[in-house]
This record gives sequence, structure tokens and C-alpha cells, in this order.
Amino acid sequence: MFSVHVLNGPNLNLLGAREPEIYGHATLKDIEASLLERCAPAGVSLTVKQSNFEGDLVTWVQEAAASGAWVILNAGALTHTSIALYDAIKGAKAKVIEVHLSNPHAREAFRHNSFISPVARGVVAGFGPLSYTLALEAIFSAETSETRKS
Amino acid sequence: MFSVHVLNGPNLNLLGAREPEIYGHATLKDIEASLLERCAPAGVSLTVKQSNFEGDLVTWVQEAAASGAWVILNAGALTHTSIALYDAIKGAKAKVIEVHLSNPHAREAFRHNSFISPVARGVVAGFGPLSYTLALEAIFSAETSETRKS
Amino acid sequence: MFSVHVLNGPNLNLLGAREPEIYGHATLKDIEASLLERCAPAGVSLTVKQSNFEGDLVTWVQEAAASGAWVILNAGALTHTSIALYDAIKGAKAKVIEVHLSNPHAREAFRHNSFISPVARGVVAGFGPLSYTLALEAIFSAETSETRKS
Amino acid sequence: MFSVHVLNGPNLNLLGAREPEIYGHATLKDIEASLLERCAPAGVSLTVKQSNFEGDLVTWVQEAAASGAWVILNAGALTHTSIALYDAIKGAKAKVIEVHLSNPHAREAFRHNSFISPVARGVVAGFGPLSYTLALEAIFSAETSETRKS
Amino acid sequence: MFSVHVLNGPNLNLLGAREPEIYGHATLKDIEASLLERCAPAGVSLTVKQSNFEGDLVTWVQEAAASGAWVILNAGALTHTSIALYDAIKGAKAKVIEVHLSNPHAREAFRHNSFISPVARGVVAGFGPLSYTLALEAIFSAETSETRKS
Amino acid sequence: MFSVHVLNGPNLNLLGAREPEIYGHATLKDIEASLLERCAPAGVSLTVKQSNFEGDLVTWVQEAAASGAWVILNAGALTHTSIALYDAIKGAKAKVIEVHLSNPHAREAFRHNSFISPVARGVVAGFGPLSYTLALEAIFSAETSETRKS
Amino acid sequence: MFSVHVLNGPNLNLLGAREPEIYGHATLKDIEASLLERCAPAGVSLTVKQSNFEGDLVTWVQEAAASGAWVILNAGALTHTSIALYDAIKGAKAKVIEVHLSNPHAREAFRHNSFISPVARGVVAGFGPLSYTLALEAIFSAETSETRKS
Amino acid sequence: MFSVHVLNGPNLNLLGAREPEIYGHATLKDIEASLLERCAPAGVSLTVKQSNFEGDLVTWVQEAAASGAWVILNAGALTHTSIALYDAIKGAKAKVIEVHLSNPHAREAFRHNSFISPVARGVVAGFGPLSYTLALEAIFSAETSETRKS
Amino acid sequence: MFSVHVLNGPNLNLLGAREPEIYGHATLKDIEASLLERCAPAGVSLTVKQSNFEGDLVTWVQEAAASGAWVILNAGALTHTSIALYDAIKGAKAKVIEVHLSNPHAREAFRHNSFISPVARGVVAGFGPLSYTLALEAIFSAETSETRKS
Amino acid sequence: MFSVHVLNGPNLNLLGAREPEIYGHATLKDIEASLLERCAPAGVSLTVKQSNFEGDLVTWVQEAAASGAWVILNAGALTHTSIALYDAIKGAKAKVIEVHLSNPHAREAFRHNSFISPVARGVVAGFGPLSYTLALEAIFSAETSETRKS
Amino acid sequence: MFSVHVLNGPNLNLLGAREPEIYGHATLKDIEASLLERCAPAGVSLTVKQSNFEGDLVTWVQEAAASGAWVILNAGALTHTSIALYDAIKGAKAKVIEVHLSNPHAREAFRHNSFISPVARGVVAGFGPLSYTLALEAIFSAETSETRKS
Amino acid sequence: MFSVHVLNGPNLNLLGAREPEIYGHATLKDIEASLLERCAPAGVSLTVKQSNFEGDLVTWVQEAAASGAWVILNAGALTHTSIALYDAIKGAKAKVIEVHLSNPHAREAFRHNSFISPVARGVVAGFGPLSYTLALEAIFSAETSETRKS
Repeated sequence: MFSVHVLNGPNLNLLGAREPEIYGHATLKDIEASLLERCAPAGVSLTVKQSNFEGDLVTWVQEAAASGAWVILNAGALTHTSIALYDAIKGAKAKVIEVHLSNPHAREAFRHNSFISPVARGVVAGFGPLSYTLALEAIFSAETSETRKS
Repeated sequence: MFSVHVLNGPNLNLLGAREPEIYGHATLKDIEASLLERCAPAGVSLTVKQSNFEGDLVTWVQEAAASGAWVILNAGALTHTSIALYDAIKGAKAKVIEVHLSNPHAREAFRHNSFISPVARGVVAGFGPLSYTLALEAIFSAETSETRKS
Repeated sequence: MFSVHVLNGPNLNLLGAREPEIYGHATLKDIEASLLERCAPAGVSLTVKQSNFEGDLVTWVQEAAASGAWVILNAGALTHTSIALYDAIKGAKAKVIEVHLSNPHAREAFRHNSFISPVARGVVAGFGPLSYTLALEAIFSAETSETRKS
Repeated sequence: MFSVHVLNGPNLNLLGAREPEIYGHATLKDIEASLLERCAPAGVSLTVKQSNFEGDLVTWVQEAAASGAWVILNAGALTHTSIALYDAIKGAKAKVIEVHLSNPHAREAFRHNSFISPVARGVVAGFGPLSYTLALEAIFSAETSETRKS
Repeated sequence: MFSVHVLNGPNLNLLGAREPEIYGHATLKDIEASLLERCAPAGVSLTVKQSNFEGDLVTWVQEAAASGAWVILNAGALTHTSIALYDAIKGAKAKVIEVHLSNPHAREAFRHNSFISPVARGVVAGFGPLSYTLALEAIFSAETSETRKS
Repeated sequence: MFSVHVLNGPNLNLLGAREPEIYGHATLKDIEASLLERCAPAGVSLTVKQSNFEGDLVTWVQEAAASGAWVILNAGALTHTSIALYDAIKGAKAKVIEVHLSNPHAREAFRHNSFISPVARGVVAGFGPLSYTLALEAIFSAETSETRKS
Repeated sequence: MFSVHVLNGPNLNLLGAREPEIYGHATLKDIEASLLERCAPAGVSLTVKQSNFEGDLVTWVQEAAASGAWVILNAGALTHTSIALYDAIKGAKAKVIEVHLSNPHAREAFRHNSFISPVARGVVAGFGPLSYTLALEAIFSAETSETRKS
Repeated sequence: MFSVHVLNGPNLNLLGAREPEIYGHATLKDIEASLLERCAPAGVSLTVKQSNFEGDLVTWVQEAAASGAWVILNAGALTHTSIALYDAIKGAKAKVIEVHLSNPHAREAFRHNSFISPVARGVVAGFGPLSYTLALEAIFSAETSETRKS
Repeated sequence: MFSVHVLNGPNLNLLGAREPEIYGHATLKDIEASLLERCAPAGVSLTVKQSNFEGDLVTWVQEAAASGAWVILNAGALTHTSIALYDAIKGAKAKVIEVHLSNPHAREAFRHNSFISPVARGVVAGFGPLSYTLALEAIFSAETSETRKS
Repeated sequence: MFSVHVLNGPNLNLLGAREPEIYGHATLKDIEASLLERCAPAGVSLTVKQSNFEGDLVTWVQEAAASGAWVILNAGALTHTSIALYDAIKGAKAKVIEVHLSNPHAREAFRHNSFISPVARGVVAGFGPLSYTLALEAIFSAETSETRKS
Repeated sequence: MFSVHVLNGPNLNLLGAREPEIYGHATLKDIEASLLERCAPAGVSLTVKQSNFEGDLVTWVQEAAASGAWVILNAGALTHTSIALYDAIKGAKAKVIEVHLSNPHAREAFRHNSFISPVARGVVAGFGPLSYTLALEAIFSAETSETRKS
Repeated sequence: MFSVHVLNGPNLNLLGAREPEIYGHATLKDIEASLLERCAPAGVSLTVKQSNFEGDLVTWVQEAAASGAWVILNAGALTHTSIALYDAIKGAKAKVIEVHLSNPHAREAFRHNSFISPVARGVVAGFGPLSYTLALEAIFSAETSETRKS
């Protein structure tokens, strides 16, 4: 079976506490629990991490790629500034799905550029915690169709 | 139950024929069939339309909103140029999920702006025909949680 | 006597229904009735049309110009994107007054450019349905002074 | 009854003399006379002023707002450069109609921005001296509908 | 033998009537007659169409490509705004020659970008009705050299 | 002892009256009184002026510099447009502290440039009337350390 | 009583050593001592930290906000690039005063944008170490007026 | 004979005192004396004025034009911001020579645009006080050649 | 009869050798031969030149204009940078047809501007060596219609 | 005594012939004659050259500087594009007066930048052939004042 | 003798593994070995480090500068975004040679700006691992010439 | 063996004389001598040329490529403006190393773009005359490794 790394960038540790009227009351722990419900029965390994450091995210992307794991990446503010993440994904050939809780294009202009998008397999944005679930679904779907082919 | 309108813009009638090495061999008909598999058992009404005319899409968005239907909108090239679609969605308070087969941010610079994103509930891009399925899943999820609340 | 064509672009069919707290409850029908009150006694012919299609507006501008009619043009979202309307007005030498219910310069940045303004005789914006009435008054005034000269 | 202040910016004292083939032969005095024809019978107080100084216009806008008067403002060149006028209108909550003899959007690029538009009730441009008359008509209309409500 | 579709965008129906001092007195009908003189003896099928609707042009480009016909495309104002035409030509692999009566680069700045050029085989601009003739000549030349090779 | 000139630009005469929910109820007179409490016991001369005219502010900056006085400058809207003030400060070698009640960088984009900042000794912004007090404190501090050195 | 966290970004550990002819000879330790003189007698708790890592600053801002402490933030170079700090301040509702030793607007163009300013309570820049003192004074002032109200 | 108005904008009253190492020790009075040496013997009337107010300069340009006088205009900082001066020169058909002591194109970027240049007969910049003398020489030359023609 | 100068800019001497998979194997000599086939029987004088020096092209354009010859100009890289060529064509009133082997608008962004286009009679681009032939045809056509008129 | 090199760029050999209604009928020879009238009696050596090649102008500027001669430079179109001339003037410390017959800032936008201005002693533009005379006068004046000092 | 610190930014730990067809098979270890061959015999101390954290690189640059060591800096993606590195080099007066394996100017537009270049002694880019060797050679050369002088 | 052409652009003939405090006292002759020391013993042919003409450099690059020689290219000011050089290098497949004495990215903004970089094998900048030596070293290294492979 395959494994999935859910990597979260700066301030996503505040999830649930920060502006709940916008982002809802779900914490990262809740999201992890929800994703696990889908992964566990299927024997899919799930890892959820968060860091406020760009360097950690770069390292984690490299590690995921090295181990062959899929990456669900919510890079937070780094989405818009981190060429290092772009290089990590491209250089290590990581299989990345970009997710966002809200839709960056409906927010401030400085969030309209993404260094993740050009090197991601796909993007899911604007659905709150459900964005993660849909990204996971996309991974299951990709794995299934690959399995079917082989 | 609720209903879903899948509205497709210019050149999406070419789907399956146009650059299959990139977009795959699935046609709009195939996508419709695949979405129907999910909708029919749930008693959800599904409508799939395509037009090369901006005016048709504006009208269809207005109609969907008037009937209370959800909209899965792949506006194609109009995504990047149509303020009229922006106005239709906003003015008619349409419930729109924006979808794209490929990821516009990984393509030409003139595809990096979206007039749909700021007024859409969410965005799914880059997963090929699966983008539609994930958007549909998001609608089911939203309807479920609303039902649960009431 | 002269005649006046009131041409309305995308989404103006929603008038009265769309965001009434901003645009008021007057519909296009109401506006037509109000303009007719001024035109009928003066023997001025009045035509009011609306379309979500740029092609219709281009054609109507050409027809109005060919018949010598004045045009009160609220091109809606096309104001900001349609070089074709610019060409139609300039090429057919149409006598156009540009109107807007709200003031585009007080709204989103993508509404700050107008392809109608450079080829219009004048602009009235921001007065709600009254914008149409003032535009009509301007036409009466122009016709009167021309008549007086001859 | 209400009162109306017609405030004119730099170089509008040249009206009638300056490029008459474009702006016509009407002077500010002529415009005042023409507006008075409409105001006097209705018992509406009318004040017409002109200054080449931004400071005067800022002060006059403040005074008009303090006295509850309407403002018909042709700020001339200051339209495009004066954040101070923007602040005066917004800060003093002045009721301003922006007017222009010609249409700034049909002229040099440096006239395409207006600091008055975002804080004006409406804009009338391009009709020559008639622009003032139409603005006045808009004020009468607003006052009438307010009276009717009360 | 091969066939040629001459597709014309918004306002080109005005040809001959619109600003004849610039564009000359030739109408689309005249151009068609002139092109026919060259096509008929060679057994080449010729179709000339015009529409003010972007949707028609997108559809016609798709149809021409599907039938293997060459396209001489004067998209008028749509040249500068229509990503949908770009997509149609590229997606359907249409063989397009871009033509213009006047030279867009000698006109307003908003005509300096072309969405047709990057996907056209070649461009002919500035020669009035002769632009069409030269484009036709280029097609004959391409067909001849291909024939010779085979 | 030294003296301090507090120079205020356009619309600051509205202080206390204008949008009190944002700017508070303190007027320029109140601010003057509050600054005097600090200056009087220390034998520091204080002058507070306001004008809606750029020319006055330029002149006052020149005069303050000529007399060796410190300047606390809230140029209001002129902050963002007046190269003349920049020249006055630089040319006359005026000792200027730039103050703002609100933080210009948290407001409209046209307030993000300051022609005062590059030639000011320091900037205090966003603290309401307290901004003036902190600026005054900075002047006392500078004078004290200079005195101590001599 | 309240507490104050003084958070310093990259290279501020060099203070006193780096370009002393510009920044003076005071080190971060000296600044801490000077601030303590004001805090200790008032029973205000003071914490001074420095890091070259964006992740540390994001974490510290979150922690300060969680504990209800005020933040005096000199983010150094991160001021101009860190959307993550913007998100931390806004998301955690931190009470931040932005300080700078020199005035960024008098320096290189790439220092003219601040991601801290739009979410800070106020800004003090250009006074060298005194900038910190003035920021502290602003906090005392805010706490006093709040106390007085309650 | 003809007359010449030498009009000077903001901060030019500082001439001689302001940065003499750059601008030299000549004051406006000295320049006037030097120009008079050339004008007096030729019976040419000379007027030298300075103001820190844009409104004064606009008015003076209008007056000079009305009297048929030539204008030597050093608008100082207003050169780069005053559309009102552009309008005054163009509207009143003033005969203006633009002068600068230093060369604006060798200074800050915000001095690279001139609203005077497009409507001036000629420009002389960078020669210090000699710039005025050369401008005067150009006027004499123009008057001579006109006289010779008549 | 008339004469035609075919002027070629930098690197066009490499034609045939440089990237033949793109530009084909035809050399400038081959193109000359092909054009001669058309010119010789008609008694039209033909001159073909190439230079890597902008100065040569400027001089040749001046000479062609002085002799009344037509110019087919492929300025190569100078198309995008040479204001001197623009001035030569405009100043000497040269009759120029701009040609390109490939379509500059389908290539790097720095090739999207042309200083030749605004002063050329027409443009032919993208047809390889055939571009020259079509340009020649356009000249023959222009000469014929002029002859017919006289 | 000193010497003066008058260096002219591309297309200035057309002077007198090119658009005489704008530039007048004076040729470079006429200008030389006129400058000689001033130089000869004063024993000043005069050299006038013209080239369409940037390389010649760069070389001539170097040579003039090496010989200590003054340069009156009308670089024509190269003014706006030649960093090499900027480098030559700056590197060789040439004493250059920039002249233009017309005023570049009143012409096309691509003439608004000058690479000569930042390294020139002064600029004279817009006076036709008189621009050269005024530049020469400026040189005489500079030499006189230097002589007087020594 | 002197010492050299070779500091490497994000993703350079992937060297050898990442896209070997472009970057070759040499790892950081291989590069270290190669540089050591040159340093060891000369008694030059060599340190090679890599980090994915900006904070580490800032700290290491400070430390190198404090110890007087030379720095060969390949900041990877941080080259284009890190003002903090710019500040570290400038503030600590570090002696830095900037190196890149590939040439950033031949890659994506977002790699065309470098915050290292303006404060580096020199730049070597595009030679693969050899870039490091050439940078080392430059350091030896600088040290030799300094030694020779003393 | 191989040969190396060292091609130098405008103003590099001034080397040694021009601003020696910046560029040092080494002339092009000195650099040639220094490079020869390395080439002669190895039997490598060396040619050093300089021209102020873009056309010469284009031609020389073509010739070097045709002969199989390496090119060390210091194009001076042409680096930033010459698309023709870009075309020559790319079209003729020249093996070019770009060198600069100083670092263009540490200088004026108009030197930040290079048309050489995207088509060069590598870049060495900022080391003074040593830049040439390092470039030569890179060539030796490339030749050696190629030799070793064969």
C-alpha cells in the first residue's frame, strides 16, 4: 500500500482557535482524525506534521519524495513566497497535492501567486477542512487507476 | 433533494478529441456518465451543458441560481476574461464550484487570473475529469452537513 | 422626430431582483416605463433591449447607428472588456451616451477602464435608474439645440 | 429648501475663452445664469465659486458639508491628483456630484484616474455646460424623492 | 483539392461602409468575389462567413479544423481579447493564417497584443483587402509544396 | 531652550469632528493643550498651525528651519503627493518628525508612498493623538542627548 | 499588570557591532537594560528575544498573543517578505507595535513594503534605540487609558 | 516691444541659501539683475515672481498669456505633479520656456516626468542660473526672427 | 518601372545554415533568386543587401527612399530595439514592407514590440522565405493599382 | 583657447530635407556655418560630424574627451537606447551638452528616457537649430567663468 | 593562512541525486573533496555546510565574517528572496563570492533578481561544480595579491 | 588544440585609463598578456579584439562559432540591449562565456538584464581582470573533461 504525508506550514497550528467564524472549529487534530477514518481501513499510512519553519517543510517534502509517499501540502503563507519549496518539489520529484482552507484568489493580492501550483499535481482550495479530504480522495483515485493499469 | 448543473465553456466540446495525451480520452459524455453514477442513486438531479458563447453561460448561471441548483463551472478560457460571469455569480448569488482539468497556474501567464475564483465557494484544478467528481463530492458534503444541522 | 435605443448588457435582466439594497427595486420594465413618460408626449420613439451576448450588443449598436437613432448604452461588464463595442460605436458613428447605475470607479479595479467612454458623447454614472433619465435629458437637450440652429 | 454649491477648480475661470471650438462660448457666469433659472423658481439657494488653489476647494467642500449644502464639483486638473479633496469629501461627508465638461477617459492617460469618483454620489461627464444642468437635475430628483419619503 | 474558410469577426460586416477613406470601398462580398477568382479555376472550395459573436468564431474554427480546411481569420477586436479563439485553434489544431486590413501595431495600445499570432501559421497585416489575397496565396503555396513532396 | 512647530496639512482642522469612531474626539486644540503640558514646564516654545494649502506648509517648514525650530509634521494627504514639501525639508535642512494619526500602510494603496519619510528624522504612525506626544518625546530625547554631549 | 515581549528578527544580534557610525554603539542588551528601567518600577514584565529564523518569530508572536502580552516587533529584513508574520499577528490577534532603528522608506526600494504595518497598532521608525522606548511608552499609554476606562 | 515674466515655483526663494555648494550663491535677486542687464537696453519689460502656491503659478501663467508676455517657467517640484499648470499653459496658449537649475533626469526617479515639457516651446536644464539667461536668449531670438519676417 | 530594395539585418547572413530545421535550407541567395524570377520579366530592378550594422540599415533605408525605391525590410533583432530605423523610415518617407521569417509574437516576449510596424505599409510574418515573396506581391499589387489610377 | 565637437547621430544628415514644416529648412551645414560665426572670431576650433553608427559616436565622444574638447551632442534616436554612449561620456569624463531640435518629452513615450541626460552638463531642447547655438553659448559662458577664476 | 566557508542553501543536499542529467552526478561531498585538493596543500582551512533554513545561513555568514573567513555562497532559492542574507553580508562585512551551478538568468523569471549580487565580491554561475572551483581560485588570487602588497 | 577569442564591446578600449580607482590600471593589452601566459604553453591559440560597433561583435561571434573557437565575451553596454548578439550566439551555436569586470547587478537598474546570459555557458562577474582568467580556466576545464571522455 501507499502512504500520505500531510504537511502544514506556518500558523496552521492555530487552526480551530484562529478566526473560527471563518475557518470553523476543526483543529489539525480533528482533520487528522477525519483523514484517518478514510486511510486506516484501506491500510494507508498517514502522517500529519506542522511547522512554522520553511526549512522543515523543505526537508519534509524531500523525505516524503524519497520514501515514495504522497504529499498533501498546505504551505500557508509560504505558498506565495517560497521558491525553496518549489525547488524541493521539482528537484525531488515529489507527488504533491496543494490544498488551502480558503481560496487565496478571493483574498489579498499578495496571495494570488503560488510557487506550489506550477509543480503540484492538482489544487483544492476554499472548502475548509474538506479541502484535505478531497485531496486525499484524489490520491486514492490516482492510486486505484494506477493499480488497475498494472 | 437538490440538483446540480455542470456548465462548460468554450472548446470543452472538444474534450476527449483535443490533445488526448494531455487531457485523456474521456469526453463530456463520459464525465456526465461518471457523475450520474454518483447522483442517480442519491436522487440528485444532474444537468450537463456546454457552450462556446459567454452569453449562454451567463444565462445558465442565472437560471441555476434562480432554481436553487448548485453549479459546477468549468468556464474554460472565459475564466480569465469574463467579468460578466463574475457579475452573474455574484448578482444571482449562485452556489458555484470552479473546476479545471489542468492547473491554470502551471500554464501561460494569461491564465493566472480568474474572475470565477473570488465568487466561487471552492476550486478544484489539475485532476483531469476527476476534478468534476471531487467538486461533486464537495457539494454532497455541503448538503449533508446542512441537512444535519436542520 | 428622433428615436432612442436603450441597450443593456449582461446581467441587467436581473435588475430589481439583484442586490436590491444596492440597486433598488426598479426593474428594466420600470425604467422603460419611466423613460416612456418623457418620450411619448414628445413623439420620441423608444426601444429598450437587453442581452447577455456581446454579439447582440454589437449588432444593435450598428443597427441603431444605421437608423440614425440615439443610443443609451449600459454595457454592464462588457464596458470593461469589449473592444468590439468600441469598434462598433466608432465604425458605425453611433451617437452613444454611456450610463451606469453605480459608479465603476468606486468599485473593483478591473472596472476602472471603459472601452465605451472614449467613443461616447457623454457619461452618466452612479445615480441608479436616474442615470438613464439624465442621459435621456441630455439627448433631448442636444436635439433641441440642433433644431434651434436649423 | 436646500442649497447647492457649484465649486470649480483650476483654469475653469478661462471657460468660454479657452479653446471655444471645443468647450463652446459659455462662461462660468453663463452657466451660473442657466442654473439659476432652475434654482430660483424652486427657492433653491445657489453659490458658484472658482479657484486655482487646491486649498480653497478643500475648504469650500468642508464648508458646504458643514452647512448641509449639495456640491457640484468640477475639480479640473485636481480631479486626478488631489487626495486632499478625496479626504475632504469623505471626512466631512459632503454630498458631491462630480462633473466634467469633456470626458476625461477620452483624453490623456493621466486623466484616467479620479480621486473624486470613489467618494462622489454620481458622475456626469462629456456634455459641456449641460453636465452642470444634469447634475443639478440629479440633486432635485434626490431631494424630491427624500421629501416624498418623509 | 483543399478548401478555405474565411472567417471574419465583429464589425467586419461594416466593411466598405465604415470609414471608407481608411478601409476603402470594398465590402466583404467584394473580397469574396476577388478570392473566388483565384479559387474557382483551381477547384478550391471557398467559404466566407462573418459574425459579431465570439462563440460563432470558436465553433467555425473547430468545424474548419475538423474538416481539414484552411482558415483565413480576421478576428477583428476579438484578436486582442479572445483566449477562447487561441484555445480553439490550438486544441483543434486548425491551420490558421491571421489577417488584418490595417496594422494593429500602428494603432491603439490595446491592439498590440494578439491571441491569434502565437498559434497562427503566419500573419498578413496592413494591406487592406489585399491582406486576404496574400494569405490565400500563402495557402496555395503551402499546398503546392506539400503536393510536390508527396 | 528650543522650540517646536507642529504643522498640520489639509483636513486636519476637521479632527474630532471627522469620523470620531476612528480618530477619537480629540481636536487639534486638545492635542495642542496636551503637548503644552509637556513643553511649558520645560520652557520649550510650542506653535501649532494648520492649513489646507500646500504653499503654507512649504513656507512654514522653511520658516521653522530658518529659526532652528523642530517640526512635527502631519502633512495629511500631501504626504503622498508633495514633492515641494520634500524639497523644502531637504533644501532648508529642517529637523522634521513625520506623524500620522492612523497608519497609512494599513489604508488605501495611494497612501503607501511618503515624500516626507526619506527626509524625516523619524516616523510615528498609528497611535492617534498619542503619535504627536511620542514625536515630542523623541525631540526632547534628542535635545537632551545633544545637551549632554556639549 | 501586563507584560511586553520585545521580538527581534535577523541580524539584530549584530546591533552595536554592525555599522556603529549609523546605528550607534548600543547593543540589544543595552536596549533591554534601558527598557527595564521603565518596566521594573511599574511592575511590568519584560522579555527580549532575537532570532535569525522566521519560524521562531512566528512562534513567539503566537505565544505572546496567547499569553495576552504586548509585542514590540523589529522583524528586520522579514518585515518586507514575511506573509507568515502577517498571518501570525492577524490570526492570533497579537497586539503589535512595529519598530525600526532606521527609516525603511529612506532606504532601498525593496524595504518600502511592510507586511507588519497593516496589522500593527502603530509604527515607530528612524529614532535608533529610542524607537523601542517610544513604542514602550505607547504601550504604557494604551494600558493607562484602558485602566482608566474600567 | 515684448515683455517677459520669469515665474518661479516652490522653494526657489531659498536660492543662494539652499545647498550653495550645488546651486551656487546666486539668489533670485541676482538672477533678476543679470536678466535685466540684457532686457533693459533692449526696452524689454521684465517681471520676476516666486510663490510656494500652485494656484499663484496657474494664475500668473494665465495673466502672462492674456497680456501676450513670454514666460520663463521654473516650476520647481510642481513640474512633476501639476496637471493644472499643463492645463493653464495649453488652455491660455501661453508661450513658455521651461527652465531648471539642475537636470531633473540626473536626479530622483520621481523627477523624470514633466507636465510642463509637452506644452513648452523649449527646455533648458542643468546650467544653474545660466539656464535663465539661455532661455531669455531663445526668446530674443524668436522675437527677432518674427520681426524680420514681418 | 520601379525598383525594390530587400534589406536584411543582423544574422540574416546565417540563413540556411542557422537552425535549418526551423528556418529551412534556403539562403539569402536562394531568396534573391526566387524574387528575381518575379522581378526580371517585369523589368523591376531588385537589390538585396545584408548587414550586421544598424548604421548600414539606416543609411540604406534613407538611400532607397531618396531613389523612390520600395523597401522589403527584415531588420532581424533590430526590429525590436532600433528607434533609429523608425526615424529613418518616417523621416525619409520610405515605402517599407516589414517581413519576418518566423512570427515574432509566437516567440520570446522581447520580440513582441516592433519599431518598424508603426511606420510600415504592411507586415508579413511567419511564412519563412515565402514572406519575402508575399511582400513583393504586395508591392506589385500597389504599383498596379496606382498605374491603373493614373 | 578651447575647441568644440558637434556630434550628430542617426538621421540628422536628413536635416533640412526631412519634414521641413517641422524642423525648418536649415541643414547641418547651415548650422555649422551659424556656429562658426560665433567661434571663428573667438579663435575657438569647431568640428561638426554626423554618423548613423553608434560605434562612431562612442569613438568620437572618447576622442573629444581625450583632447579636452567640449561636446555638443545630438544623439538622435540613440539618446533613448544607447547605454554605450552613457558609458563613453562617464568613462572618458567627456564634457557634454545634450541638444535636441524638438522636445522629446512632447513626443512618443519611447523618447521620454535619455541615457545622455544623467551624464550631461546640461540639456537644451525644442528650439530647432537654435538649440545648438544656446548650447554653444553655455560653453562660452562656462569657459569665461573658469578663465575669470584662474 | 586564511580559511574558506562554503555555505549552501535549500535543496543543495539533493545534489547528485536531483536531475543528474542537468546537474551531473557530483554530490556536495564530491565538491568538498575537490576543493580540499586545492586547499589542503596550501594550508587553507575549508568548511562546507548545507541547510534548508534561512536562519542557519544568516548565522553562518555572520560567523564566517566574525572569524575573518571567506565565504563561497550558493544560497539556492534564497538568492532571490532573502533580504536577511543581504543584511547579514552587508552588516557583518562578509567577504562573499556568489556561486550557482546553473545560470539563474537562463531560467524562470523569478530567478532573475539576486539579493546576494549587490553585496558580493563577484559572481560565478553556470559551470556546474566547477563554479565552486573558480570561486575558490578567485579567493586564492585575491589573497595572493594582498600578500604581495604587504 | 582549441582556440579562444576574447571579444570586447564598447568602451573597453578605455580600460586602464577609465576610472582606474575602480577598474584598476590593467589595460586590454595587459589582460591579453596575462591570458597568453596560460595559453601559450598549452598550445592554445588566443585572439583578443575590441570594437565600439555592435555589428563587429555580431560578426566576430559568428566567425568564432564557424571556426569552432571558444568565446570569452565582455559585451560592455551591449550586454543589456543587444538582441542581435543573443541571436548570433544562439543562431551560430557559439560557445560563449560571459564576463564582466564589475558586477552589473550591483550597479544601475538598466544593467540588471543580460541578453548574453540566457545563451552563455556560464558567467563570471565582478573580479576585475581576473574575471577573464577564471573564464579561461573554465574553458580549459571543459576541454580537459571532453578530452578525457573521448
